[in-house]
Amino acid sequence: MRAEIITIGDELLIGQVVDTNSAWLGQMLNKYGIKIHRINSISDNSEEIKLQLSECLDRSELIIITGGLGPTKDDITKKTLADYFGMGWRTDHVVLAQLEMFFKNRGREMLETNKLQAELPEGCLTLNNEWGTAPGMWFEYNGKIIISMPGVPYEMKNIFEFKALPLINERFSQPKLFHKTIITINVAESILAKRIEQVEDSLPAYIKLAYLPNWNIVRLRLTGVEQSGSDIIKEIDVYTTAIMNILGEAVVATEDLSMAEIIFNLLSHRNQTLSLAESCTGGYISHQMTMIPGASKVFVGSVVSYSNSVKHHQLGVESTLFETVGAVSEQVVLQMVEGVRERLATDYAIAVSGVAGPGGGSVEKPVGTVVIGVCNKDTTLVQTYNFIGDRINIIGRSNNMAFEMLRKLILS
Amino acid sequence: MRAEIITIGDELLIGQVVDTNSAWLGQMLNKYGIKIHRINSISDNSEEIKLQLSECLDRSELIIITGGLGPTKDDITKKTLADYFGMGWRTDHVVLAQLEMFFKNRGREMLETNKLQAELPEGCLTLNNEWGTAPGMWFEYNGKIIISMPGVPYEMKNIFEFKALPLINERFSQPKLFHKTIITINVAESILAKRIEQVEDSLPAYIKLAYLPNWNIVRLRLTGVEQSGSDIIKEIDVYTTAIMNILGEAVVATEDLSMAEIIFNLLSHRNQTLSLAESCTGGYISHQMTMIPGASKVFVGSVVSYSNSVKHHQLGVESTLFETVGAVSEQVVLQMVEGVRERLATDYAIAVSGVAGPGGGSVEKPVGTVVIGVCNKDTTLVQTYNFIGDRINIIGRSNNMAFEMLRKLILS
Repeated sequence: MRAEIITIGDELLIGQVVDTNSAWLGQMLNKYGIKIHRINSISDNSEEIKLQLSECLDRSELIIITGGLGPTKDDITKKTLADYFGMGWRTDHVVLAQLEMFFKNRGREMLETNKLQAELPEGCLTLNNEWGTAPGMWFEYNGKIIISMPGVPYEMKNIFEFKALPLINERFSQPKLFHKTIITINVAESILAKRIEQVEDSLPAYIKLAYLPNWNIVRLRLTGVEQSGSDIIKEIDVYTTAIMNILGEAVVATEDLSMAEIIFNLLSHRNQTLSLAESCTGGYISHQMTMIPGASKVFVGSVVSYSNSVKHHQLGVESTLFETVGAVSEQVVLQMVEGVRERLATDYAIAVSGVAGPGGGSVEKPVGTVVIGVCNKDTTLVQTYNFIGDRINIIGRSNNMAFEMLRKLILS
Repeated sequence: MRAEIITIGDELLIGQVVDTNSAWLGQMLNKYGIKIHRINSISDNSEEIKLQLSECLDRSELIIITGGLGPTKDDITKKTLADYFGMGWRTDHVVLAQLEMFFKNRGREMLETNKLQAELPEGCLTLNNEWGTAPGMWFEYNGKIIISMPGVPYEMKNIFEFKALPLINERFSQPKLFHKTIITINVAESILAKRIEQVEDSLPAYIKLAYLPNWNIVRLRLTGVEQSGSDIIKEIDVYTTAIMNILGEAVVATEDLSMAEIIFNLLSHRNQTLSLAESCTGGYISHQMTMIPGASKVFVGSVVSYSNSVKHHQLGVESTLFETVGAVSEQVVLQMVEGVRERLATDYAIAVSGVAGPGGGSVEKPVGTVVIGVCNKDTTLVQTYNFIGDRINIIGRSNNMAFEMLRKLILS
C-alpha cells in the first residue's frame, strides 16, 4: 500500500515555514506499518493542487493533505477539492455549533468567514476539529482515501490522531514495521560503517540499516518488515547486540531518545537532581531538559551566565581568572560547575563556556572552542573540545557532549 | 522558470528527521527571484530517485537534490545519477587532495569509503565541499540543470551559497520578487483578514498577501513581482502602510524578525541590558536571545528557576508565597522579575511562571495559565494569560508575549 503526503502553502516553498507536519505524520503512520512514499510540497494554487492530486491518485491509495484550510483568501484547498471531486456543498450543523461554542468560550465575535468553515463538500466525511476552527475532511474516490487537514501543527496532530487514524486503521491493514535505534556519539559515519561492515552485509533483505548523523551523534536505525513464521523483534535484537558489541563505548543508548531524555531517565531512576551553568549554550541545554514533561523531578534550575559578572556574582567564579586565563578556560568552568551545584544544591551539575561564533574567536581560542565541566559531590571533570560548524551546530554539539560527559560520570 | 527540490532519505519519510534544508533553499532562491514550485521528498531507492528525476526534468529547468551522498551503503544518490545520465567515472584529484587534508587536520584515518568520495560521474562539474567530505555535483542535461548536494545542513548550505548559487545566477536571470513582512501579535488570522479586507481586495494581480500564523503571532507577507515601468518596492510600501494604519497596536514589526531579534535591536540601539527569570519556559527565552550572534551586547544572563528553592535562593522570592498563592501567581512573578533585574544588574528584566503541561494543571490554574512580568528600574508590569496548546505551544506563546510586554515597556 502506498501513501503520500501533500503539504500546501507558498510559505513552505519560500522557506518562511519549515514543514514539521510531514515528519510527524511519517512517524505516526510508520508505527502502523504504513510507509509514506513521497512528501510533495506545493503552492496555494488550484491548478497545482489538482495536478498533484491526480498524480498521487495514480500511484497511491492514501493521500494526506495539510494546509490551505484557514479562513482567509489565500486558503483554497477546500474549494479546490470540491471542484476536483465534482461535489456540491452542505452545511455541517455539528461543526457550526462547535464553532459558535469555540468563539463564545473565547469571548470573540464570530465572523462570516468563520461560519463558512462549517460549509463542507457534500460527499466528504467530517473530521471534527475540537482544537481550532477548520474541520478536517475524509474523501473516498475510486477506492482511494484522501484526507485534508489544516496546517496548524497543533490542530492537525489532534485531528489526525483522534479522528483520522482510527478510520485509517480500520481501512488498511499492513505488515508491521519494527525499528530499533542505536545512538552513538563521537564516531564519524564512515568509521562506524567500516567497523560494522560485516554485520551490515549479513542483514537479510527485510532488515535495513540507515545512518542518521546529526551534530556529533549518529543514530543507526534498523528497520525490519514483519515476516510470517519468524520473530522480527528477536531478529533485530540479534543484530543490535552484534552492533553494540563491536561499537562498545561509542553506544549511548538503544532507544530513540535525545541526550536530555537519556540523562533524565538515568537521574529520575536514581532520584537524583541536576543543575546547569550555561555560558555559550545560552539556555539551550536547559530548554532541552525542560521540553521533557515532568522535568522538575530531576531538573532544579540553571544559571545562564552569559556575562562574566553573572559568572562571578551568581556562581562564585573568581574575577581575576577572567583576566589571567579568560572566561573560556578549564579553571573558570571548574568554578562554574562546582559553584552551580553548591548554590542550587543538586546531586549533579553541568557547566559550559565556549566560543559559539561567528565572532569572538582568537588564535588560541578559535570559534568552536568549548570547555565543558560535570561534577557530583566527589568528582569534577573538565574537558576542552574543538567543535566545527556554525553557531547552532556548536551549541548542539556542546549540548550532546555535556550530557555524554555527565552520563559517564553517573555510570562510573 | 520552474525550479524543484528533491530531498532523498527514508529518515524524512518516517519522520526521524525534519526537512529544514528545503525551507532554507527556498528562502535563498526566492531572494534571487527563483521560486521553488515543488518540494519532493522520496526514499533512498534508486528506482524512486530515477522516477522522480524524470518527472522533475519534464516540467522544471532547475532541480536541486539533497541527501544520499554520505560514505555508507544507504547512500546511493551519486551512483543513481551517474546511471541515469549514462556517465562513466573520473577521479577528482582536487577533491582527493582536500579529503586527505580534511582527515589529516582532524587526526583521523582516511578509509577506502572516504577515498571513494573523490570518484565522481564523468560529465558533472564538482561543487567543492570545504566543510565536509562529500562534494556537490552540477549536471547539465537537455538544457536543464541538476544540482546534487549532501543532506547535512551545514555542508549543504555552504556548498549552495558559495559554489552553486553563483553559477545559478549566471545561468538564470529572473524578474525579481520582493517581500515585506508585517508581524502582528494577539489577533486571530480571521479577524486580521476581516479588518484588512478592503486593502487585500485592492491588491494588483502581481502583489499577493499571505497569512502565516505561528502561536500567537501572525506574519502578513506581501510578495510582489518586479514590473517594468513601476517601482514595486514603493508599491508594496503603500500597501504596507495601509495595513499598518488599520491594524495599529497589533503590529509589532515590519521586518521578518523573531520577537527576540526585535527586542535585541531595540535594546542594542539604546545600549541597554536584559536579564531573565524563567520558570515554565525553562531556558527557551534565553536560547532565543542567545541564538542571535553578538547577543552579549544586550543579554547578561538568566536564572532558570524551575524549582521553588531556586526562586527563593537565587531570586529572593519569599518562601511563604509558594504556600499562600503558589509559584504560578502574580506576587511570585513580581518578586522574580524585580529579583533578577536587581541581582543581575540590568536595565530590563522578564520573568515567567506558568503551567506548560501536560501535567500540573488544577481547576484554578489549568494547563496554559502563565504569569509574565517585565520591569525596569521605575516600572513593573505583571499579567496573567491563558494560553491554549501543547507544551511547546504554551512555551512559545509565553516567549512571544513576554517579549511583547517588554517591547511596550521599552517604547513607553
